[in-house]
Amino acid sequence: MENEIERIPILRVSDGNASRIEDMVAREFPLTIILNDQEMVTLLCSPVNLDYLAVGFLYSEGFLQDSDEIKRVVVDQQRGVARVEVEGNEELSSDVLFKRMITSGCGRGASFYSATDITSQKVESGTQISPAEVRSLVLEFQHRSSTYRATGGVHSAALSDTGSIQVFSEDIGRHNAIDKVFGQCLLEGISTNGKVVVTSGRISSEILLKVARRNVPIIVSKSAPTDLGVKLADDLGITLIGFVRGKRMNVYSNDWRIADSG
Amino acid sequence: MENEIERIPILRVSDGNASRIEDMVAREFPLTIILNDQEMVTLLCSPVNLDYLAVGFLYSEGFLQDSDEIKRVVVDQQRGVARVEVEGNEELSSDVLFKRMITSGCGRGASFYSATDITSQKVESGTQISPAEVRSLVLEFQHRSSTYRATGGVHSAALSDTGSIQVFSEDIGRHNAIDKVFGQCLLEGISTNGKVVVTSGRISSEILLKVARRNVPIIVSKSAPTDLGVKLADDLGITLIGFVRGKRMNVYSNDWRIADSG
Repeated sequence: MENEIERIPILRVSDGNASRIEDMVAREFPLTIILNDQEMVTLLCSPVNLDYLAVGFLYSEGFLQDSDEIKRVVVDQQRGVARVEVEGNEELSSDVLFKRMITSGCGRGASFYSATDITSQKVESGTQISPAEVRSLVLEFQHRSSTYRATGGVHSAALSDTGSIQVFSEDIGRHNAIDKVFGQCLLEGISTNGKVVVTSGRISSEILLKVARRNVPIIVSKSAPTDLGVKLADDLGITLIGFVRGKRMNVYSNDWRIADSG
Repeated sequence: MENEIERIPILRVSDGNASRIEDMVAREFPLTIILNDQEMVTLLCSPVNLDYLAVGFLYSEGFLQDSDEIKRVVVDQQRGVARVEVEGNEELSSDVLFKRMITSGCGRGASFYSATDITSQKVESGTQISPAEVRSLVLEFQHRSSTYRATGGVHSAALSDTGSIQVFSEDIGRHNAIDKVFGQCLLEGISTNGKVVVTSGRISSEILLKVARRNVPIIVSKSAPTDLGVKLADDLGITLIGFVRGKRMNVYSNDWRIADSG
């Protein structure tokens, strides 16, 4: 956790009284991802698990189809560079890359449902989850979010089965946190089929497409979804559970996966 | 507000009981911004004030230096396109655009402090603000955030003097909300010098650079900053106030702008 946090002096004003104290803030780190000698993107992220982030990002953006393709991942933390070498060595033209960035991503951009280069197959899984299991997962999730508790400045994401968390990540970006989880799964051969993704962030279309690409049938958040997130979840066979707070939650799509008992 | 919200049927689970109700979620809309016939980016945003967003985005990314340059802004809401025509007509090559996107932005990318194409001059302003004024602004800010109260799924941003809010925007993206505020200021000739920006979102380096570019000396948020956000605020002469909650707030930089009385 230490690497993700910086201690800085601040002025705290409380009820009219000011005092100089030390506070902890989340670190923000620029990471340049290079795929086969080609610079792809510079992400602002939390400086931990950068290999997972690089691989997860390349997978989410469609530059990587399977972990078998990966020959090597080298992270130079000093220089803020992650190099990923994959099978095949065709260099993409700037023209192609820019078009991709416009139509498919880069966070602010749109990952279009209808875009021809995004293959969003319907998620097929009979996994069900009870409200009690959802609550229990969210409690475990919050318990694990130590950088968030220290700084209030990061997002978390996790992969779990219906019982407990298997992979957990924190990052200043909600997209990055999920990419780190999937990057770890790819590098360590952890299956995501039939699993649950928990996120602290809002569920927009881009988040939904990441999850669909990994064949994950259930996504859970304490935050809100967007209408496009719900529409995609509906169409892609994903159960979207939002606003999990205390004993309450909203199920926005495919609610047949909600088991009784709870 | 209606345009930013979609009503959808959901299953609400509360304390073990499930009921089908109608809920409101924030709309997510893809807007393609075209500058002098050249496609620049597709943003996912809330479908309101798209002219402000297009102009604010182009300004933040450095494609526009001043409102004088703008010849025409045409928004086609049906097709999700905003066309901005400016003086001069040089087309940028995909190569240049892609390099820009990598090094300077596009949300997930990094707006580098040290990058040569970002001119971050120190903000010169004698504006001061008291803790009581900060609290009062944040209360007014929360009161205005009607889409947030309805959906929990959007960010807000505002421009104010130390007394009250002058320009207010909501958007599903925290970058977009601030770009909308500055876009409106540019199109309507509202000065941002010596003003205060209030945001619901976390204060990262990219947010700081947007604010510095408009010569705004004070930024206020109920959320956390990152270490890079604090460093930039420090260096660029901006007073960064975070975690404004109740009668408490943290001042992370240039605290000489905090006036007594409160």
